[in-house]
Amino acid sequence: MTIEELKKHSKIKYEGPKSKNELAFKFYNPEEVINGKTMKEHLKFAMSYWHTLCAEGTDPFGQPTSDKKFGGKTALEIYKNKAEFGFLFMDLLDLEYFCFHDVDMAPEGKNLKESFENFDIMVSYIKELQKKYNKKLLWGTANNFTNKMFMTGAATSPNADVFAIAAAKIKKAIDATYELGGTGYVFWGGREGYETLLNTKMDVELNNLATMLKISRDYGRKIGFKGDFYIEPKPKEPTKHQYDFDSATTIGFLRKNDLLKDFRLNIEANHATLAGHTFQHEIATARIEGVFGSIDANEGDLLLGWDTDQFPFNVYDATLCMYEVLKAGGFTDGGLNFDAKTRRPSNTVEDLLLAYIHGMDTYALGLRKAVELIEDERLDNFKENRYQSFNTEFGQKILNNKITLEELTEHALKNQEPDVKSGKQEYLEMIVNQILFRG
Amino acid sequence: MTIEELKKHSKIKYEGPKSKNELAFKFYNPEEVINGKTMKEHLKFAMSYWHTLCAEGTDPFGQPTSDKKFGGKTALEIYKNKAEFGFLFMDLLDLEYFCFHDVDMAPEGKNLKESFENFDIMVSYIKELQKKYNKKLLWGTANNFTNKMFMTGAATSPNADVFAIAAAKIKKAIDATYELGGTGYVFWGGREGYETLLNTKMDVELNNLATMLKISRDYGRKIGFKGDFYIEPKPKEPTKHQYDFDSATTIGFLRKNDLLKDFRLNIEANHATLAGHTFQHEIATARIEGVFGSIDANEGDLLLGWDTDQFPFNVYDATLCMYEVLKAGGFTDGGLNFDAKTRRPSNTVEDLLLAYIHGMDTYALGLRKAVELIEDERLDNFKENRYQSFNTEFGQKILNNKITLEELTEHALKNQEPDVKSGKQEYLEMIVNQILFRG
Amino acid sequence: MTIEELKKHSKIKYEGPKSKNELAFKFYNPEEVINGKTMKEHLKFAMSYWHTLCAEGTDPFGQPTSDKKFGGKTALEIYKNKAEFGFLFMDLLDLEYFCFHDVDMAPEGKNLKESFENFDIMVSYIKELQKKYNKKLLWGTANNFTNKMFMTGAATSPNADVFAIAAAKIKKAIDATYELGGTGYVFWGGREGYETLLNTKMDVELNNLATMLKISRDYGRKIGFKGDFYIEPKPKEPTKHQYDFDSATTIGFLRKNDLLKDFRLNIEANHATLAGHTFQHEIATARIEGVFGSIDANEGDLLLGWDTDQFPFNVYDATLCMYEVLKAGGFTDGGLNFDAKTRRPSNTVEDLLLAYIHGMDTYALGLRKAVELIEDERLDNFKENRYQSFNTEFGQKILNNKITLEELTEHALKNQEPDVKSGKQEYLEMIVNQILFRG
Amino acid sequence: MTIEELKKHSKIKYEGPKSKNELAFKFYNPEEVINGKTMKEHLKFAMSYWHTLCAEGTDPFGQPTSDKKFGGKTALEIYKNKAEFGFLFMDLLDLEYFCFHDVDMAPEGKNLKESFENFDIMVSYIKELQKKYNKKLLWGTANNFTNKMFMTGAATSPNADVFAIAAAKIKKAIDATYELGGTGYVFWGGREGYETLLNTKMDVELNNLATMLKISRDYGRKIGFKGDFYIEPKPKEPTKHQYDFDSATTIGFLRKNDLLKDFRLNIEANHATLAGHTFQHEIATARIEGVFGSIDANEGDLLLGWDTDQFPFNVYDATLCMYEVLKAGGFTDGGLNFDAKTRRPSNTVEDLLLAYIHGMDTYALGLRKAVELIEDERLDNFKENRYQSFNTEFGQKILNNKITLEELTEHALKNQEPDVKSGKQEYLEMIVNQILFRG
Repeated sequence: MTIEELKKHSKIKYEGPKSKNELAFKFYNPEEVINGKTMKEHLKFAMSYWHTLCAEGTDPFGQPTSDKKFGGKTALEIYKNKAEFGFLFMDLLDLEYFCFHDVDMAPEGKNLKESFENFDIMVSYIKELQKKYNKKLLWGTANNFTNKMFMTGAATSPNADVFAIAAAKIKKAIDATYELGGTGYVFWGGREGYETLLNTKMDVELNNLATMLKISRDYGRKIGFKGDFYIEPKPKEPTKHQYDFDSATTIGFLRKNDLLKDFRLNIEANHATLAGHTFQHEIATARIEGVFGSIDANEGDLLLGWDTDQFPFNVYDATLCMYEVLKAGGFTDGGLNFDAKTRRPSNTVEDLLLAYIHGMDTYALGLRKAVELIEDERLDNFKENRYQSFNTEFGQKILNNKITLEELTEHALKNQEPDVKSGKQEYLEMIVNQILFRG
Repeated sequence: MTIEELKKHSKIKYEGPKSKNELAFKFYNPEEVINGKTMKEHLKFAMSYWHTLCAEGTDPFGQPTSDKKFGGKTALEIYKNKAEFGFLFMDLLDLEYFCFHDVDMAPEGKNLKESFENFDIMVSYIKELQKKYNKKLLWGTANNFTNKMFMTGAATSPNADVFAIAAAKIKKAIDATYELGGTGYVFWGGREGYETLLNTKMDVELNNLATMLKISRDYGRKIGFKGDFYIEPKPKEPTKHQYDFDSATTIGFLRKNDLLKDFRLNIEANHATLAGHTFQHEIATARIEGVFGSIDANEGDLLLGWDTDQFPFNVYDATLCMYEVLKAGGFTDGGLNFDAKTRRPSNTVEDLLLAYIHGMDTYALGLRKAVELIEDERLDNFKENRYQSFNTEFGQKILNNKITLEELTEHALKNQEPDVKSGKQEYLEMIVNQILFRG
Repeated sequence: MTIEELKKHSKIKYEGPKSKNELAFKFYNPEEVINGKTMKEHLKFAMSYWHTLCAEGTDPFGQPTSDKKFGGKTALEIYKNKAEFGFLFMDLLDLEYFCFHDVDMAPEGKNLKESFENFDIMVSYIKELQKKYNKKLLWGTANNFTNKMFMTGAATSPNADVFAIAAAKIKKAIDATYELGGTGYVFWGGREGYETLLNTKMDVELNNLATMLKISRDYGRKIGFKGDFYIEPKPKEPTKHQYDFDSATTIGFLRKNDLLKDFRLNIEANHATLAGHTFQHEIATARIEGVFGSIDANEGDLLLGWDTDQFPFNVYDATLCMYEVLKAGGFTDGGLNFDAKTRRPSNTVEDLLLAYIHGMDTYALGLRKAVELIEDERLDNFKENRYQSFNTEFGQKILNNKITLEELTEHALKNQEPDVKSGKQEYLEMIVNQILFRG
Repeated sequence: MTIEELKKHSKIKYEGPKSKNELAFKFYNPEEVINGKTMKEHLKFAMSYWHTLCAEGTDPFGQPTSDKKFGGKTALEIYKNKAEFGFLFMDLLDLEYFCFHDVDMAPEGKNLKESFENFDIMVSYIKELQKKYNKKLLWGTANNFTNKMFMTGAATSPNADVFAIAAAKIKKAIDATYELGGTGYVFWGGREGYETLLNTKMDVELNNLATMLKISRDYGRKIGFKGDFYIEPKPKEPTKHQYDFDSATTIGFLRKNDLLKDFRLNIEANHATLAGHTFQHEIATARIEGVFGSIDANEGDLLLGWDTDQFPFNVYDATLCMYEVLKAGGFTDGGLNFDAKTRRPSNTVEDLLLAYIHGMDTYALGLRKAVELIEDERLDNFKENRYQSFNTEFGQKILNNKITLEELTEHALKNQEPDVKSGKQEYLEMIVNQILFRG
């Protein structure tokens, strides 16, 4: 891929649902106002630095299918070119935000010190590009899973020196996030888990993981970072077991370690299904605990057992995701980032543009349909009505934990034949299809 | 459930996509002509006797949630009432076809002889109802998996007497299918498989399974049955392994036993995914082998590992199913049957109507969108164009197996840098979403 | 099955690993002392009332394959005969404990009141049998999932009257557990979850679930019950999503609701794998949180997506389970219960005996091998050694959360090339196989 | 890793089950005679060139953890060093065989011609090493999936030039296999499948795949290769769907294309479970069709959805595998190859040796226990007895397809109450555990 190829393209415009221009939005109309905000404000799309600018199509059985050095010769030149390509790419698609890992933005040096020097250079460089293109940082993070030294964990490494290096990289990445005006800082613990319990002290590792989160939070607050800290749950891959398995597990861990005030969740569609949950379930779980934060809007293949990170296609999932996001009050510090890569044989600049257009249109549909579902009111009314017995005096006692087993037994013996209503799942699904397809 | 409750309802009408009448079709307009045929001719919807008239909501952890004796007191009365309810139900929904297992239609007696007598009575009874309501039989089958005697198989039982009883039941069910004008006869081998290889002679069992198919075909043809014989693949459940695992396995088995002329496949959505395939894959596999037959149009939950048999909701799947069906030339002897049951808490007559309306609307959308996809031509043109190198003289030699490794090596050494094109998956998915959601 | 058939058998004896007598233990030698306790004291085997005395071999596609009325004519007679059979069965196998659901022990009446009357009769009856046979109750529970009224939940029903009935049944089952001297009371929330989020208020349901646990605990303590309350995690089935998904989720829920003092976990092998975890992982998770309680020792089939509840066969799993149990200090109030049913075609009294002998021998091997693994010391020493960097002064600061990101960064820049050691998984697995198979 | 590190080790010896020497066999005693052959003759262990000499520990989220250039500077030097290391490694472990892909043995050049030149050099080089160390080639193959040009398939590429290059590589690899005295040639179609049906003509691709197999067979036979051609089934990964899904699908494809005479199956444990089958099922399926060939003896993790290729640990699986292999008459041209890689953090030379020792001991146990199972006779006798009704005159008619539905009906009406026997699964599993653990 080259910057020149990208420059041949002009800005991607909204042309409406009937357009046959591939390089146009059919459903995403950034300035259109829906439900009191523009679509752009609602969706807060962000470019992922890693898949977009770094992933070259390797898989466990295959070599790269595209070249993302963008003509660079030296390490730094390559990374500057990645940045140039990236900001131009955001500009073409009107993407307002981006997200990064430290190693996406700058080349690793021969040691930590050199890596940090490279990183400093690139942070300044990118800061200029941000100004030039008027782009914002959604969140930053440190990649503490790729390097060989993290092969048995980072915050959960059995080696204290590795813990220290992981900490140093987090500090550096928090510094950069703050410097670039980011509103979030993410922890995804790619190797924070285990390969086998035969060699693992889970208690020590979980203890150290909590320590890392606490001191990172303390450091961030100390330097003035006011954004969210996020945990991104994933159950497994690359490890056999990853400690931040899913929303519920992660929330439990945060609660135990008194971290719920500063931490929220960054929820990914594909990670949800790998954990055996729907995407909606994971968001709803975070929402009702008050820790919903941000979204990685890729898509998995439920017939495959690994993280395929496909650009989102399924409008059902996008709609139910946006339904939950709207119920949670919309994004605040968080946003919607495409942790998605083009399929390995989709290896051109055009493919990259098409994939983003496709993904953004999918979520634009999701937003439109979620708003319609809420405005339609049938779903929410059904739900409201279904639980009405808890609005009675008796129901309120249960709801407020003001009742005993003895009182309930007494009630039960007087009301032995409850009128249990149908759940009407088919009816509710019919409404969803009507809203989605009525045109 | 009662017949009286059903009688309160009037015929379900098409009211279009904006209607808020739950008991109306929004997308299924039976007499509307699409692609040269009415929707009704295209879709050939059939009521499943078992889930609709027999299933009462039990599951491995739960008692019935509805009563489907329909007021009957004696065994025969119950089954006559089931039939009455069923034909009235078809009438209300304008379902033209139905399908049955022997045990759905008539009560089992205390032995085979008595079961056959009951069955004869009910076949006559139903024949009258068919005339009265002008309904047709899509296919019949024998249930050779529920009774205790089939606990270790029917055609693949290690007990020759059980094989004989299974054969007798098949004969009886073929007779009834012929008598009622059915155009298909289905084999679903619920217990034709094994629980453990520790006690199983797979070679003997597969041999006997082939024998059963052959002699059933011979008998059917002998009495004049001209319809299709179908195998319904399913990989597992209730057994650990079911021999008719998927389309490819079943086709291999039919080919080995020289049965491809008379047998076609009855493909079920939920069985497809249990085997690790998409529904479309299973139909396409049958189509390219020329053995596509009929469809069981339920839906599974890919996050659950059992056959949930839900009413179809997913319009993506319905569209890609109908795309394949149209490519296969549409249904001939086969049709589209709802091997689907309402969710356990959806236990009212109204739920049953809503579920069918929902399922029929889902497939109506599938048909409409599949026709649009084909008329749009972008998908098919892309595919045509992608394989054009096989239209050259050189490509034709490969296609027609008129080439050797040596010739190919010579060609390769002259053409060492092939121009391998992007697969453009994201672009193609974008087209699908456009067609589905452009209104 | 009949009591007479059972009476033909004599007590099952230990005959050692070479015995060809099917009806003898090969590895379970109850009075043999291992690691300071008899095997019987270590393993605390319990008969499950439900699968052993009630399950008749039905599955979603099949009728019963055995009859467990044990010759009873009236409802109460049937349940008395079940009890007689059960206690004789425990006697033959030297099973010291049993577990029950309310509906296993007594027939449901036409309403709650009548059910309670039946239950009272049976509790007295069973108390006598306990004395006669010198058997103990491991735990009791209420079945709040089978009856139609629980079709949309019990403690999480949208219907307050259903909540009350569930509460009343729990009260009654706690009373019986206390009366019969049980040391545990279990909550398995078969319907405490949802079928679809489209109709579900997860926040209300989780709130009510917590209320039920709290008031049940309060009641139990009030009447003097000093045993453990247990939650039995399961991720799904019969529901799409069950709230007590796995150990981590359940512990998080208990912590949130301040229930960790009174509640522990009852962990099942098959539920663990349905949640995507190993059995060992689930026990270890409970152990390190100090809430390990009891074990349901069945086994699943990882290639099947439902709860097969097979008698345990896999000695690897049994060994790693017992390794964790020993590390947790062994069973206190809890024990090891066979929530396992014979395969559907294993439908004789002899099959039931063989299955228990097989399961008990599997766990006897598990205990023997776990003790050997611990005595061998190589695994534990490897683990100890692996984390030694946390024993240094620097490591201790991390372990005790007495360090900052800045200090760690300073350390990291001085120690940029950590010596990351191999995890040696293959070596550790080699040790396990050596211990298991060296004879 | 270096050759010097390897040279520090001496030959791995058998020291028996109690040895605490890690670098010794505990169960594999090469010259010990079991069941009429030495263990070495039975097991025919082969080193996999790729994982052993090429895989450096990368995964989709991680960089290499070990260096397998073995000190080489130029491309050819690296590959010669790989070969040196490999043959010394085989020597230390007394591995008699090896297997390779073309790209494992020689560096890819800048084009096909140069790759072929490199390959010729290395084939000669390796031929010398074979003589020096007295080692044999089990099988060879061409890697037609890693290079970018195969990103949309090789034999099933939509590009005819790619088909030609794939063919040329196969020709070259067959030549090398023949030259090095290999007894097998394998096809594993890593990219022979599809990513999405939206862009795929399955009929064209399957046709071309058959052509490739036919012309490869023709070429091999023409040059005098008398060994087996093998297909290695795998259902998915790296593709969404791989055409050689499992044994049954592959056999069906071979039968359709009249290839059963020359082709057999190379069955892998991990591929079996990815397809939803047990390893034993896949081998048994090949055995009863007479096409069992060779084994890839790695192991998967059934809780993970990708090909983990672990060294085999599970003695149950190894035993049931060897049980089927013995029933198939043992290996002829095929053998048992470790398509297994050490875990990513197991990155030392010692880990590599330990992993092979562990894997070989696991299969040595498998062989020993399989022989004991067969000699014990209880399993086989049970199975024989179970199907005895097919030894009667009546049963023989079924078995030989000499009966009609009418005759069977007549028989059934006279024998309405068949005596269906228990499957006794628990009893049979008890026998397996007894044999495995009796010492």
